[in-house]
Order: sequence, then structure tokens, then C-alpha cells
Amino acid sequence: MKIVIVGAVAGGASAAARARRLNEEAEIILIERGAEPSFANCGLPYYVGGEIEIRDKLLVAPAAQLRQRHRLDVRTRQEVTYINRDSQSITVRNLETGESYTETYDRLIISTGASPFRPPIPGIDSPHVLELRDLTDADRMHELVTTGGSRRAVIVGAGFIGIEVAENLVRRGLNVTVVELVDQILPPWDAEMVRPLEDHLREQGVSLRLNDSAEAFEDNPTADGNLTVRLKSGASIPACFAVVCIGVRPESKLAADAGIECGPRGGIITNDHMQTNDPHIYAVGDVAQVKDFLTGEPTQIPLAGPANRQGRIAADHIFGRNSTYRGTQGTAVVGVFGKTAAMTGHSEKLLRRANRSHRKIYIHPNDHAGYYPGASQMTLKLLFNPEDGRIWGAQAVGKNGVDKRIDVIAMAIHGGMTVYDLEEVELCYAPQYGSAKDPVNMAGFVASGVLRGDHPVTHVPELQSPPKSPDWFVLDVRTQREFDAGNIGDATNIPLEELRERLAEIPQDRRIAVYCFVGQRGYMATRLLKHNGFDVFNLSGGYRTWQQHHSTETES
Amino acid sequence: MKIVIVGAVAGGASAAARARRLNEEAEIILIERGAEPSFANCGLPYYVGGEIEIRDKLLVAPAAQLRQRHRLDVRTRQEVTYINRDSQSITVRNLETGESYTETYDRLIISTGASPFRPPIPGIDSPHVLELRDLTDADRMHELVTTGGSRRAVIVGAGFIGIEVAENLVRRGLNVTVVELVDQILPPWDAEMVRPLEDHLREQGVSLRLNDSAEAFEDNPTADGNLTVRLKSGASIPACFAVVCIGVRPESKLAADAGIECGPRGGIITNDHMQTNDPHIYAVGDVAQVKDFLTGEPTQIPLAGPANRQGRIAADHIFGRNSTYRGTQGTAVVGVFGKTAAMTGHSEKLLRRANRSHRKIYIHPNDHAGYYPGASQMTLKLLFNPEDGRIWGAQAVGKNGVDKRIDVIAMAIHGGMTVYDLEEVELCYAPQYGSAKDPVNMAGFVASGVLRGDHPVTHVPELQSPPKSPDWFVLDVRTQREFDAGNIGDATNIPLEELRERLAEIPQDRRIAVYCFVGQRGYMATRLLKHNGFDVFNLSGGYRTWQQHHSTETES
Ligand SMILES: Cc1cc2nc3c(=O)[nH]c(=O)nc-3n(C[C@H](O)[C@H](O)[C@H](O)COP(=O)(O)OP(=O)(O)OC[C@H]3O[C@@H](n4cnc5c(N)ncnc54)[C@H](O)[C@@H]3O)c2cc1C
Ligand SMILES: Cc1cc2nc3c(=O)[nH]c(=O)nc-3n(C[C@H](O)[C@H](O)[C@H](O)COP(=O)(O)OP(=O)(O)OC[C@H]3O[C@@H](n4cnc5c(N)ncnc54)[C@H](O)[C@@H]3O)c2cc1C
Ligand SMILES: CC(C)(COP(=O)(O)OP(=O)(O)OC[C@H]1O[C@@H](n2cnc3c(N)ncnc32)[C@H](O)[C@@H]1OP(=O)(O)O)[C@@H](O)C(=O)NCCC(=O)NCCS
Ligand SMILES: CC(C)(COP(=O)(O)OP(=O)(O)OC[C@H]1O[C@@H](n2cnc3c(N)ncnc32)[C@H](O)[C@@H]1OP(=O)(O)O)[C@@H](O)C(=O)NCCC(=O)NCCS
Repeated sequence: MKIVIVGAVAGGASAAARARRLNEEAEIILIERGAEPSFANCGLPYYVGGEIEIRDKLLVAPAAQLRQRHRLDVRTRQEVTYINRDSQSITVRNLETGESYTETYDRLIISTGASPFRPPIPGIDSPHVLELRDLTDADRMHELVTTGGSRRAVIVGAGFIGIEVAENLVRRGLNVTVVELVDQILPPWDAEMVRPLEDHLREQGVSLRLNDSAEAFEDNPTADGNLTVRLKSGASIPACFAVVCIGVRPESKLAADAGIECGPRGGIITNDHMQTNDPHIYAVGDVAQVKDFLTGEPTQIPLAGPANRQGRIAADHIFGRNSTYRGTQGTAVVGVFGKTAAMTGHSEKLLRRANRSHRKIYIHPNDHAGYYPGASQMTLKLLFNPEDGRIWGAQAVGKNGVDKRIDVIAMAIHGGMTVYDLEEVELCYAPQYGSAKDPVNMAGFVASGVLRGDHPVTHVPELQSPPKSPDWFVLDVRTQREFDAGNIGDATNIPLEELRERLAEIPQDRRIAVYCFVGQRGYMATRLLKHNGFDVFNLSGGYRTWQQHHSTETES
Repeated sequence: MKIVIVGAVAGGASAAARARRLNEEAEIILIERGAEPSFANCGLPYYVGGEIEIRDKLLVAPAAQLRQRHRLDVRTRQEVTYINRDSQSITVRNLETGESYTETYDRLIISTGASPFRPPIPGIDSPHVLELRDLTDADRMHELVTTGGSRRAVIVGAGFIGIEVAENLVRRGLNVTVVELVDQILPPWDAEMVRPLEDHLREQGVSLRLNDSAEAFEDNPTADGNLTVRLKSGASIPACFAVVCIGVRPESKLAADAGIECGPRGGIITNDHMQTNDPHIYAVGDVAQVKDFLTGEPTQIPLAGPANRQGRIAADHIFGRNSTYRGTQGTAVVGVFGKTAAMTGHSEKLLRRANRSHRKIYIHPNDHAGYYPGASQMTLKLLFNPEDGRIWGAQAVGKNGVDKRIDVIAMAIHGGMTVYDLEEVELCYAPQYGSAKDPVNMAGFVASGVLRGDHPVTHVPELQSPPKSPDWFVLDVRTQREFDAGNIGDATNIPLEELRERLAEIPQDRRIAVYCFVGQRGYMATRLLKHNGFDVFNLSGGYRTWQQHHSTETES
């Protein structure tokens, strides 16, 4: 068996290593355009920022190790330029010598990844407009930020790579502007969930320009840099360099040219075994179109974990194993100046777009028992199917313990579990680590309460939608002091503790929207009012969620 | 509906609060012997140690709040002394006045918890022999450690409370000795998993006396304290005070006296709705015998999360809901001077004792990508059923990220999932948080490899069992340097990188046990040798696991 693998990083190197473990005799050739195989793409921003000090650390499995341990034929600085399916061969160009040669294969694995999207904006080819995908890109940016000189940078795109780059450039002392087309950072998340992070970025000195985009890059040496970035809004920002991080596109041209089927977004279409329409050819990682774990529909989510697993599965299948890829869940995490945002499964916007039946709740639990020092509050949003309670997805943002809760929910989604399972699961508890009712349990309690009809909820958009329904009687059950410090306009304040005595003040013929700070007292009030015959809804997540829907003002 | 609840902390207060949310009219009486309801038992050690500075923080829901928010009739400093099932009434003694009165109930919830076991050791009633269950105990210990004077303490019992108390007394500058009957700390964990913690405790100055026990406490004022603790080993240790932490016993006497059925270990027998044999009486929390989540067999594991959930379920059932308790998983976590030990499900010793078919693997992954600063290694042990791959349990010990992995596996256990699910689950990955192949995935890979027959493993006891099977050829595939720094006696060293060239040095007629440092190179070597026809087994967890089996020397 002769296996040729194009691209030797996350998906490719994993496939190669697994193939060797499955078969000692096979000839396994790993062809990589770059100078190094198996590097830590995900570490690049932190090398630029200096958090990772030693470049060699980025070389996860150096070529020598791949050769010695796994007996792989590693060929770096070689590019596959053509696939000839009829002859089961490829053309490879040696980038050192410029010469090309042909290599045959029994099985071919395409793991060429995805390249940063570079839209046709005037000036985008300027040497001062960078991207960050590989070691060469990182070296270049590293040099610009360490050899002094660079003081200002513009990042175009506020996806997770853009945010990571922003953080790391700030760490290097640069003045950073992030420009984002849509009205939020981290577009896969729901907007209200990332509002606090937008505020946080601004507090760290990042200038955030949402709802804006780069219209031109002009090479233009001034006192402030080499470049002027002209924005749609009319603003122009001087910078030493710009970084374009507006998403990636599968590097599938090689495959498409060979008649391998690709999807509408450019990903190579694969079956459950990562096979393309040519059964001798597999595609794994960012270049592949896979299925969504929950819906089975086609998707492309560029993540390292799935790339690694897909490589493993392709190798398995080549050696006759029935391993199948179950689909991508979309579990992702990003650190933002000491805060964390994590998500798994579907976002609300995705569910809306696909018109899938869903409900949602917000909670704001502490990461560990409030009575133990250092507790910090997170926001957790849970999306679920009202028919059977199945979990659609979750998002969380906070300082600590965020990735833990999303991982637990990711496991639950993987098991096809429901909000009722979150209610009952028994998680670690000691005061430094969690609560007797862990945030995951709490999310389960609240969501189950909604589905059982115990806990009618409403949400910020329903409450504030203009024309605001004239029927809402908005009731704030916090203390007078909390109320005075800020509230939802038109609200009447009756503290929970006084509510039973003051029921007469609440109209019986209107829909009541109750809220407190995080939703919990609001829930108790909701129960109480419901028992007393009122038509009542709790504002899920309370005033805090309200604030998150409103916090960010777009800079101009 | 009139509900009387005996004991107003984790289980009781949760039942009461939930009952009120379910019904606004019910009369709900919470009777508590102590001065405060709803306090943070789990925080007591940290109040003693000063980590929690303000005592009021321990009062999670003060009586006033329970009264105002939930309209509960909270009666503190009152003890229920008798249950009259025929008349559906109880006798209550007011501890302030000494007077008793009768209270009727429609439903009774017993949530009296468990009290520290005090064996009949001579001198155990000395005022210098303490325990730590409630606020009074904590106040006493707090005073002893803050008003100076106390310099030495002996803790009897190295369960999680004993360890937490040890840490907190050290934090207060005391010289601490921990005495434990069995040959390990944290008896529910498997011994080899906690060896590193034993070393760690010793490094922090704790004197650990395993395989020993207290035989007498003698009031005996000396320069070193008020007490001499005489041990079975013959040693006698002077101390200012001793703390007995050798487990708890359900406070079920009240119930037993009333003819409510209790199990052999004293727990009140309950059904899935937390009902006792008297359908008007429920028992929840530490006082109840419940079922094991995995096997359905009776169990008693005193934990706050289960107590809270059981209280909620009892309240539900009283109001006609069909909520059921699914059983206790045994998910627990403890912090030990900056390290964490966590577990879920069954331990190996439990599986052995019950003669349940199981396999196990060890891994030692980093908590996050090794290339990102601050990664620390943890040890993770996974136990699973060889028939279907179902997860029996997991234990992990390390510095960071330990509770996260155990929580994810707890969720998997809750969903009846298998090691094959751990293999495929998609978890958060960015270099600060995890790895593209998360420790949970790694555990899944390794365990699945074992079950698929790809990865024959052996374990330390099999390798070292005297008489050591003379057939083992022990092969160390680490570098010469690693080998020289310490190895398993009798091992032959051939580094993985040279193995293919040196196959001739390996006997074909003997069983080969391969090992490396953590098991991963050993696995690669195992694959390689297997492909070459050798009868080979990988020492799971490698030299590190070997060390963990051997690290602790009992002090004497
Ligand atoms: C800056 C950055 C940060 C990231 N952070 C995270 C993170 O925190 N978490 C996460 O999950 N994911 C992260 N990712 C995404 C993750 O790195 C990718 O999803 C993953 O690497 C995809 O693996 P792959 O094998 O498909 O492609 P890649 O790892 O990109 O490897 C493809 C390789 O193929 C080579 N190649 C392409 N065409 C050819 C050809 N014709 N001939 C020869 N070689 C070729 C390329 O040079 C490249 O080295 C990050 C990515 C970047 C760029
Ligand atoms: C020091 C310490 C640390 C702990 N740490 C953890 C931890 O980190 N994680 C964890 O999960 N668990 C921990 N626990 C265990 C946890 O606190 C218990 O599992 C939980 O509190 C059990 O709840 P319960 O309602 O059954 O009993 P309890 O919370 O003990 O409440 C029972 C109450 O009933 C009262 N009572 C008893 N008899 C009567 C009577 N006849 N009349 C009136 N009142 C009565 C008692 O005074 C007591 O207040 C810890 C326990 C202790 C003591
Ligand atoms: C480094 C690289 C070549 C590794 O490939 P790999 O050998 O398949 O993966 P790992 O080193 O993670 O090891 C996993 C294997 O070791 C086994 N293993 C891990 N720890 C083990 C242990 N303690 N005992 C026994 N086996 C162990 C696993 O079972 C698995 O083998 P399997 O797939 O046959 O089941 C590849 O993942 C890579 O190139 N990574 C860097 C690029 C990248 O991922 N970038 C994106 C993220 S920054
Ligand atoms: C404090 C105590 C009385 C709380 O009882 P409780 O009200 O049932 O529990 P919590 O305060 O945790 O709140 C949980 C309830 O609020 C709801 N809730 C929580 N956050 C919410 C939010 N943001 N929005 C809406 N509802 C929310 C939950 O759904 C749940 O209600 P449900 O059971 O009806 O579904 C009880 O848990 C207790 O005494 N604890 C301290 C003692 C103890 O546990 N000791 C051991 C550990 S140290």
C-alpha cells in the first residue's frame, strides 16, 4: 500500500502517524509545501505576542521525529501541483529546485487546509498587508513587532484569529484597531453573548470598529506607519501594517481541477469515512466539507480537533476499518485578555436561519461557590429543542470555568442528551471548583423549567421590540437600591421580599414581565405570581442579559 | 399540604425552597437543631484556614431570606426528637427553652445528614478531640488556630475532609500529622492515583502516617500541647488538639426508632422518589441510602450535589410530579495544596471487590498544549467495561484542568456512553485550554485501542508480581539518557527511534513488556513489534505510572 498525503500538518500528519501505527509495511509519503511539517498553527498568534518565546516550541513533531518514529517519507518545500486520477499519480514541484516529478499513489489524502480569504480590495497586495496562517507569516509579523518600529496595526476581521492577533499585538505594545463588517466580534457566537467581550477589548485599548470594512489599503509612509487603511465609514487609519483575518477558504483547487467534487463553499465533499467521490482519494481537515453533528447537513468549520480526528479516520478506512466521522459539533474557545468565550453546537442565529424549532435561556452563575474567594460570574446561554429537550448548543463567556462547562455540554450533545440530563448529572463539587448545583445543572434546571411550563420566560427583543407591546407590565423585583442604580425604563419596582404583600399593585389584566439582576429572583417571583393567577413571564437572564443586549456603542 | 422538614441545610433547605416554588399555599416548616439553616458545610475547612475570611459568607441562605423569599417557617435551635407515624406528628424540642411540643405533618422530609463517626477510642471525649461538621465545630477550631497557642495538631483520617483540614491547619502555621488506617490517603480513590498527592502533602510539611491508627487520646499538658495521641504503631504524638475525620454515619436513629427501614450501613432506605417505606416520609441527603447510578445497587456517598438534587426530587414528588433520582455517580473533587484530585464512577478497587468485568488505562497528558507556557501534566485513569466499552469510572490528579476532564467523563457516564464516544467527542481547543486531542479524547483513543486489540496493555502489578513471570522481556524504549536516570530493573533499553534496526536483539519466544515514560512511545513500539510478530504488551502509563505505584514510603 502506498499512501500519499498532501499537506503535513493537523489532518495530514495525524493521518500519516495513524497509518503507520496501523501498518508497518505501507509506504507513506507526506508532502508539505512549507518548510516544516506538523507545526502548531494555533500557537502562531502567541508566538507573535511573545507568550510563546521559543519558535521551536511551535514544531510539534519535527520532520526528523516523523521520519524516525513513524518511518514517514517527509518531503517539505514540495508542492503538489496536479492530481491525475486516471494514472493515480500526482505532480510534485520541488520548491527548492523548481523541478517537478511524478509520484504514484494507491490512496491519496488531501489535507491542504484552508487559506486566509483575501478579497479584492485595492492595495491588498501591499507588503504591509499581512495574514497569519503559517510559520512564514508568523516570522514576518514577529519581526515587525520585535524589531521595534511598529506602533500601530489594523486588523481586518474580528473572528477568533483576528481577536487573538489583536490581543497579541497589544501585548507587544501596539496600538490596535479591529475592523469588522458585521455588528459584532466573533461572528459565530450570538451577538449579545460577545458584547461584554467587546467592552473588554475596548478597555484593553483595542479600538473596535464594528459595522465597518476596509475599502482600500494605501501604501503611504507617514509618521504613523507605512499604510493608510480606508474604511467604508469614511475613516482612514494609519498603520505600520494590517492583518487580514476575514475567514478562510478551503485550498481545494487541486482537487477541483482533478474533478473531485466540491461543495458550494469550496470544501471537498466527503462521506462518513472522509472519502471523496473518488474512492482512492480522501480529504480531511479544513479543506473538507463534512456534516454537521446535529443535523447531518453539510458544513465547514475549520478547527484543529476535527482535522486531527478526520485524519485518523481516513487512515483507518484505508486499512479496512469502518471508522466513521460523526460530524463536526462546532466546539470552539477563544481567550480574550483573560476572559474566555466558548461555544458548542448551534448558535441562535444558525437555528433561526435554518428555521429550527428552539428555545433558549440565559443564566449568570459563578464559576465556583460564591462564598469561596475569587468566584467570577459567567454568562451561559443554552439553546434546546422544545419538542424533546435535546440540546442544540451552548455559549458561555466569563473569566474562569467557561471551557469546562462548554466541554461538559459538548459531551452531552455528543450523547444526544437533553436538558433533563443536565439537570441530573453529578459533577465535581468543592468550593474552589464549582457549586453543589453546578452552572451546567442550573442551566438544566432553568431549561427544564421552561419546557415543563413551570417557568414561562420572555427575552429582551420581545420586551423591547418596537412597537413595544402595550400590554407588558414590567416588574423589577430587585431591591430599591439596585433598581435606582439602573433599570429597564417603564418598570415598576416591588422587591421580591415584599411581593406577597403587594400583589394588589400588579394589574391582573396585563401580561407581566418580571426581571431581577440575573433571573433567579425573577423566577421565584414568576412562580409566586403564577400561583396567584397572573399571566407572567420571567425575563431570562434578567437585567444583566438586558445590559448585554445594549452595552456596546459602536465607535465612530 | 403541610410539609415538615427535619434538618435545614443542603437537602432540607433545597427541598423547602423547591416546595415553595411548586406550591404557594403549602405550609412548609423547616426545623434545624443548629443556630443557622442553609450553611456552607463544604466551606468550613476554608474558614478555619482563613481562606474564607468572613464567617457570614458561610451563611448561604440566612433564615431571614428563607422566610422572606420562600415564606418558610424556619425554626432553628429546635431538635426533632421523635416521629409518631401513626398520628403523623413529630416531637420537637426547643433547645433554647428545653421545652418540647408536637407538630403534625402531611409529609415529612428527613434530611438530618450524617455525623462524624467517633469510634470508642479511649479519650475520644476529651475536649481537645474535635470534629468538623457544623458551624459550632468550625468556630471552635477557628478560635484554636487564630488565638495563637495551637502549634501542633493530629488529624485522624485522610479522607477528603481530613485532607482539607490538614491543608488549612498548615495554612495557619500548625505542625500537622495525619494518621490513616489504610495504606493510602483518600480511600475512595485507587492507591496508585493518590501516591503523588501523598508525596505532595509531605513536601508541604504534613507528616503522614499511613497504615496506622489512633489507639488513645490522653489529656496531657506538655510544652507541645494538651494531648498525646497514641498510635497503634507505638508512636505517640503530642498535639494541641486532634480532629477526628474518619467518615460519617447517617443520622438515622430518629427514623429507625420510628420503624422506618434502614440499610446495613445505617442509611434510610429510599425509592427513586426519595420515599421511605412510609409513603408520607421522605429521606434525602447523607441520611439516605440511595442507588448507585451505574449498578442500581444500594449506596451511601455523602455529597452536597446529590443532597441538593434529592431534596428537589422529594419536593417534586410530594406535589405529584414523577421526578426520579437516577442514582449517585460518586463524582468528587478535592484540592490539596494547589493540586487537584477528582473522580467519578467506580474505582478499580470497587470493581474488583464486586468482581465486575473491567479494563483500565493510564495516561499522563498535559492540561493544555505543551507548546503554550504553563502546561502541567496530569494523570488520568479510565476504567471501562470490556464487553461494550461503557465507562465505569475515571480518576485524575494534577495541577490544572483535572476537574474539567472528570466532569466531561461524568457527563459521559451519565449518558451511558462508551470509550468510543470519548474518542469522538469534540471539545474546546485553543492552546491555553486544551489540546487538539484533548486528554478526554486521548483516554478514549487509548481505551478503544485496548478494546479493539490494537493495543495490548499490561499493568504494574502484573509486571512486578512476585513471582515475576520469568517470561517477560522488559523493553525500555526511551532514550539512553532517560533510561540511565532511572528504570524498571531488568529492562533492556532500545530507544524507539532505533527499534526497527535492532529487532534482532529482542527474543521472539518471550512475552515482551514495552514501556516508555508515559506510555505513548511504548504504544508506538508495541504496534511496531506486533506488526513484526512479537507477543507484546505496553505498560499502560509507562514509567510514570510505575513510579506512582512505588513512590510513597510509609513514614515511621
Ligand atoms: C493563527 C491560527 C490560529 C488557530 N487557532 C486555532 C485554535 O485555537 N483552535 C482550533 O481548533 N483551531 C485553530 N486554528 C485552525 C486550525 O489550525 C486548523 O483547523 C487546522 O490546522 C486544519 O488542519 P488541516 O490539516 O486541515 O490544515 P493545515 O493545518 O492548515 O495544514 C495544511 C497544510 O497543507 C499544506 N499545503 C496546502 N496545499 C499544498 C499543496 N498543494 N502541496 C503541499 N502542501 C500543501 C499547507 O502548506 C499546510 O501546511 C487556527 C488556525 C490559525 C491559522
Ligand atoms: C467539612 C465538610 C466539608 C465538606 N465538603 C464537601 C465538598 O467539598 N463537596 C461535597 O460534595 N460535599 C462536601 N461535604 C458533604 C456535604 O456537606 C454533605 O453531603 C451535605 O451537606 C449533606 O446534606 P444533608 O442535607 O444531607 O445534611 P447536612 O447538610 O449535614 O444537614 C443536616 C442538618 O440536619 C440537622 N439535624 C440533624 N438531626 C436533626 C434533628 N433531629 N432535628 C433537627 N435538625 C437536625 C443538622 O444539625 C444539620 O444541620 C462536606 C461536609 C463537611 C462536613
Ligand atoms: C503531532 C502529530 C503528528 C501527532 O500525530 P499522532 O501520533 O496521531 O497523535 P498524538 O501524538 O497526539 O498521539 C496520539 C496517539 O498516541 C496514543 N497515545 C497517546 N497517549 C498515550 C499513552 N499515554 N499511552 C498509550 N498511547 C497513547 C493515542 O492512542 C493515539 O494513537 P491512536 O491514534 O493510534 O489511537 C499530529 O497530531 C500533528 O501534526 N499535530 C500538530 C499540528 C496540529 O495539530 N495543528 C493544529 C493544532 S495547533
Ligand atoms: C440555598 C438553598 C436554600 C437554595 O435552594 P434553591 O432555591 O433550591 O437553590 P438555588 O438558590 O441554587 O436556586 C436554584 C433554583 O433557582 C433557579 N435558577 C437559578 N438560576 C436561575 C436563573 N438565572 N434564572 C432563573 N432561574 C434560576 C433554578 O431553576 C432552581 O429552581 P428549580 O429548582 O425550581 O428549578 C439550598 O441550596 C441550601 O441551603 N444550600 C446551602 C447548603 C448546602 O448546599 N450545603 C452543602 C454545600 S456547601
